[in-house]
Amino acid sequence: MCELLAMSANTPTDLCFSFTGLARRGGAAGPHKDGWGVAFYEGRGVRVFHDPDPSADSRIAEVVQTQPIKSRAAVCHIRQANVGAVGLENTHPFIRELWGRYWSFAHNGQLHGFKARPGVYRPVGDTDSEHIFCDLLNRIRAAYSPGVDDDTLLQVVVKAAAEYAREGVFNLLLSNGRWVFTFCSTKMVAITRRAPFGPARLKDADVTVDFQAVTTPRDVVSVIATEPLTSDEHWDHYQPGEWRLWEDGEVRARGVETIPRWSHPDPDKL
Amino acid sequence: MCELLAMSANTPTDLCFSFTGLARRGGAAGPHKDGWGVAFYEGRGVRVFHDPDPSADSRIAEVVQTQPIKSRAAVCHIRQANVGAVGLENTHPFIRELWGRYWSFAHNGQLHGFKARPGVYRPVGDTDSEHIFCDLLNRIRAAYSPGVDDDTLLQVVVKAAAEYAREGVFNLLLSNGRWVFTFCSTKMVAITRRAPFGPARLKDADVTVDFQAVTTPRDVVSVIATEPLTSDEHWDHYQPGEWRLWEDGEVRARGVETIPRWSHPDPDKL
Repeated sequence: MCELLAMSANTPTDLCFSFTGLARRGGAAGPHKDGWGVAFYEGRGVRVFHDPDPSADSRIAEVVQTQPIKSRAAVCHIRQANVGAVGLENTHPFIRELWGRYWSFAHNGQLHGFKARPGVYRPVGDTDSEHIFCDLLNRIRAAYSPGVDDDTLLQVVVKAAAEYAREGVFNLLLSNGRWVFTFCSTKMVAITRRAPFGPARLKDADVTVDFQAVTTPRDVVSVIATEPLTSDEHWDHYQPGEWRLWEDGEVRARGVETIPRWSHPDPDKL
Repeated sequence: MCELLAMSANTPTDLCFSFTGLARRGGAAGPHKDGWGVAFYEGRGVRVFHDPDPSADSRIAEVVQTQPIKSRAAVCHIRQANVGAVGLENTHPFIRELWGRYWSFAHNGQLHGFKARPGVYRPVGDTDSEHIFCDLLNRIRAAYSPGVDDDTLLQVVVKAAAEYAREGVFNLLLSNGRWVFTFCSTKMVAITRRAPFGPARLKDADVTVDFQAVTTPRDVVSVIATEPLTSDEHWDHYQPGEWRLWEDGEVRARGVETIPRWSHPDPDKL
């Protein structure tokens, strides 16, 4: 399996603290040694770091941990390869432009032998994940035209996500820079931090942050992850089939789809 | 104007030396302080760094200068903004997937008010450069199907490049990971390094490298840039209208198109 991390905030916020915890799981505190990647949106632009080396000893990961890159939407993934060789072309998040916006996609799970339906978008690598991403964007292009409103777009995304989740384990992060869509097939947690802010301690590294010192009373910052990243805060667990659309740090829409109860893949068996 | 840099090599080679020279021009030895970006291909994958801050004092640029990222095709750009605000979405190189490969595009020059023809690809930012890139890919998609051979593809690329160069200053780097297509409207130079390798000294920084110590006798590494990056080697100057297709460090095809003799834009006037 892999580990996912996303952020949605109402003000440009860095991901240094959360990423520090996650990066430790990439070869140091966890088995996810087959690369990592992160997409930070800044306005319409996106800054992407991809590295097929373990995050725990990557110099680029070190910069991402220590250089505050401020974003209102970010999507991150550290990989333990199951389908597709270890290589840059198979490193999440995958990025494509759709209708003048960059979309980013990160996936935890497995859909055996999944192939994207024909269309504009084609996978570059050979993961099931990238096939699913291309399939999803091809569905969107086939169903709608540019300028479609978010509520309508959301319908096809939810429907597609539920269909994928019926074929295998499918925990999803998807962003277009404005919002972050999240879908839980087996395992996903979230936390929303807002005033009054307090301190927090990472589970995977001896690092504490006092959020009050780095925020204003108006800030709302939500973090979504595969497992809680801190040991002294309450993380809210998604139920299987649950999806949430995050924007500006808040849940804008949510729902639960009926999906099979897959057991979460055991890292030792992959 | 901006500065371009590309590499084509027959063996995975890092760009640290050349990038160190170029990065110095981004705010230290030159006026190109409005961001920089680089795309390194590794197999079918591409590792992209984009930074809207000056390269001369970017921590990410420092990593790119000191961490050997080995690639057989790379495209780099440092920007002095003329069209489009300084921002991540306007930072070259631009990347799109076409038929299962990542294409990257960097441009020096200006085509006033250029707009991409309608098609699959749409600009995210508001530079003429990204409009040209989308236009070019839309032309390719309209003219050909996946699997088209390189020679045929090259025809449309050369034709399009010459047309763009008739509308304004258009120095181009374009890569799909296998080859690097280069087009000179006003200013472009190249050097091919092969055995016997010697030392070289950067023009813009007090840095010397002994290529013999870091190469094998079979290596062929070509560097293409806006201006020579070293002071003690012979760089070959393109003529206006000249294009070269590089692959594995060698020129695979070349030609000269008839274009107007634009004067190169004066950085002080932009």
